[in-house]
Amino acid sequence: MSDVNVIPQGYRFAGVPAGIKKTGAADFAAVVSDRPCAAAGMFTRNAFPAAPVLYDRELLAENPAGLRGVIINSGCANACTGEEGLADAAEMARLAETAFDTPPRSVAVMSTGVIGPRLPMERIASGARAAGVALPAGGAVAAAAAAATAIMTTDKRPKVAFRQAGCARLWGMAKGAGMIHPNMATMLGVIVTDAAVSPSSLDAALRSAVDVSFNAISIDGDTSTNDTVMVLANGAAGVVDQGVFAHALTGLCTDLAQQIVRDGEGATRFVTIRVVGAETPADARTAAKAVANSPLVKTAIYGGDANWGRILAAVGYSGVAVDPARTDLWIAPGTEDAAESPGRVQLVGKGRPLAYSEEAATAVFNGAEIAITVALDLGSGDATVWTCDLSHDYVDINGHYRT
Amino acid sequence: MSDVNVIPQGYRFAGVPAGIKKTGAADFAAVVSDRPCAAAGMFTRNAFPAAPVLYDRELLAENPAGLRGVIINSGCANACTGEEGLADAAEMARLAETAFDTPPRSVAVMSTGVIGPRLPMERIASGARAAGVALPAGGAVAAAAAAATAIMTTDKRPKVAFRQAGCARLWGMAKGAGMIHPNMATMLGVIVTDAAVSPSSLDAALRSAVDVSFNAISIDGDTSTNDTVMVLANGAAGVVDQGVFAHALTGLCTDLAQQIVRDGEGATRFVTIRVVGAETPADARTAAKAVANSPLVKTAIYGGDANWGRILAAVGYSGVAVDPARTDLWIAPGTEDAAESPGRVQLVGKGRPLAYSEEAATAVFNGAEIAITVALDLGSGDATVWTCDLSHDYVDINGHYRT
Repeated sequence: MSDVNVIPQGYRFAGVPAGIKKTGAADFAAVVSDRPCAAAGMFTRNAFPAAPVLYDRELLAENPAGLRGVIINSGCANACTGEEGLADAAEMARLAETAFDTPPRSVAVMSTGVIGPRLPMERIASGARAAGVALPAGGAVAAAAAAATAIMTTDKRPKVAFRQAGCARLWGMAKGAGMIHPNMATMLGVIVTDAAVSPSSLDAALRSAVDVSFNAISIDGDTSTNDTVMVLANGAAGVVDQGVFAHALTGLCTDLAQQIVRDGEGATRFVTIRVVGAETPADARTAAKAVANSPLVKTAIYGGDANWGRILAAVGYSGVAVDPARTDLWIAPGTEDAAESPGRVQLVGKGRPLAYSEEAATAVFNGAEIAITVALDLGSGDATVWTCDLSHDYVDINGHYRT
Repeated sequence: MSDVNVIPQGYRFAGVPAGIKKTGAADFAAVVSDRPCAAAGMFTRNAFPAAPVLYDRELLAENPAGLRGVIINSGCANACTGEEGLADAAEMARLAETAFDTPPRSVAVMSTGVIGPRLPMERIASGARAAGVALPAGGAVAAAAAAATAIMTTDKRPKVAFRQAGCARLWGMAKGAGMIHPNMATMLGVIVTDAAVSPSSLDAALRSAVDVSFNAISIDGDTSTNDTVMVLANGAAGVVDQGVFAHALTGLCTDLAQQIVRDGEGATRFVTIRVVGAETPADARTAAKAVANSPLVKTAIYGGDANWGRILAAVGYSGVAVDPARTDLWIAPGTEDAAESPGRVQLVGKGRPLAYSEEAATAVFNGAEIAITVALDLGSGDATVWTCDLSHDYVDINGHYRT
């Protein structure tokens, strides 16, 4: 598709090298709107939130309808840096507002990289200046791709997605699970749209979208100090139907979230886990997350070993209501519901192991995409979670992240 | 120490091959008392408890002062096997009672191995017969060691421990190397004593001991379907002081629990994590467990990379009360409190990264034993948890467990 169709009206992008990463790769990104935006954000629940998270929370509370953009550095997370780190985040925003000629308190900040070190402020300043120079020509897909590349850490590929909602466009980028300084599974996401949406409607749509997308993925169960997803809506395309907008936002977030899992550190397989028939949707999510986070399930999947007892064991220790005698388990290739898939193999029926073909089960577990469905038959609580396997490469990447 | 000093009076042991493991290694163990025993047990909280867990719970409720022994097979967990599995467990007990010439409902059963398959009952029967033949000569340390070896799965070494309490002796064995997050991992433990203790006192002492030993370790955060710790007291040495007995039992359980962590699947380092000054002891435990279960912390430790931000990040997502500005972090070689250790390196003080020697921190993280202390300065809740690193060998062992 051409640039005109993909990039929402009124946004410009930059991705430049600021010398924060030792490699000299692009490590400073900017997204700027020509006009004020309604903004909404969701942040890590980690009790050690990074300085940029603290800064942005306050900024959004104070100015939810007047944001002009976001700047992001990779290579240093500005987390666990105390009061000095908070002052650095504020200074980073101020440097950007000067370089981009936007009002005070109009630019949000995000950081990703190693936890602990202070931000290299001279390099942040030169990054802001370089981005300010690049922005005026930054209305094209190439510039947006440069921004999506500059926020990568251990990511192997940039992650971008696009949706149309009526006459409005939504474009988003995300990073997570990377390769250069990969330890924190930091997830950052920025979504921009030219729809006209109020801050409160934007917030509601974001919460609903994130719940079934970014909050439904797991690579290693570690929650970062920096996780942030922010959406900006500048209204350039006018008002669109709220339901249509919310649907498009959810689709875009799910697309980005799945890209993160597919690019998970060391990932060799993409796994879709459904738990259906739980007492509540929360129970279904908890059980599916327990399976997604089980090192034993994840290593079995890496090994292509259909060791399904580990799946039920994980559901069993998740703490949700279970009646073993009512439990069914299916696996299938692909990403659709394993219980309904033409390639399905049912392993357990009403709590009893079935006489399935070990060869067929092994074939499923050796595929690039594996779907698992656990049916609890207790209620109408359903959830879907996406994850990847746990491989030798994950251990390599994270055993020597800072070296 | 000689046999006479280590084995409690009146117990005999056997460890024999029954053909359940493909390797032909010993896979059937028996512990039998000459006289009836008070018995107490703690079992997995997994919602898919294995058939032997269901059987033993009922047996202990019915006959807490009349047990004569325990039989254990490795190679097959008899878990997720439905009603047929429960009938198999009952038949396994009956076969043992016949072979050992003990009354009905006097022998508890334990199983460990792959989840899903039914027990091979012909082999269980031949194992019971072979154990029955070996038992009369089984009063020595060598026989007890054979039993401890027969219950191994991925364990590299048998795990046994001994304590004296007054004139009574306590001897115990355990197995477990993966699926270890004992809330009440497959973790099995059998402890025998010749102290005279009532079933209710024995139960209280076991609960208290397990809480700070087996329940304070984690290898991979997976809680097994089969976890069981059982203690038998036959009274042959008479009554001993209850406090002395409880202290000895706690010491013995801690010894066995630490042996499990040191033999953790793929483990190369032994890690002691203390969280002190939490609002409550439960908070301290939760935070310490989050650090112990973090794949990012565990891979950094494997890599010898003192990437301490991951430690605080794990405390931060554990959900417990934290004030970043009050948090301190130390590391040290060894197993004692890192904050007090002569070799300590303080990394964070009141939430701020300190100017520590990276060389010294790296040296600590490259040791065989690493102590980590996080001080939250919010209350008097303290907890200690033991864990190991996450290595390439863990991935190998669990990627191809059944093959």
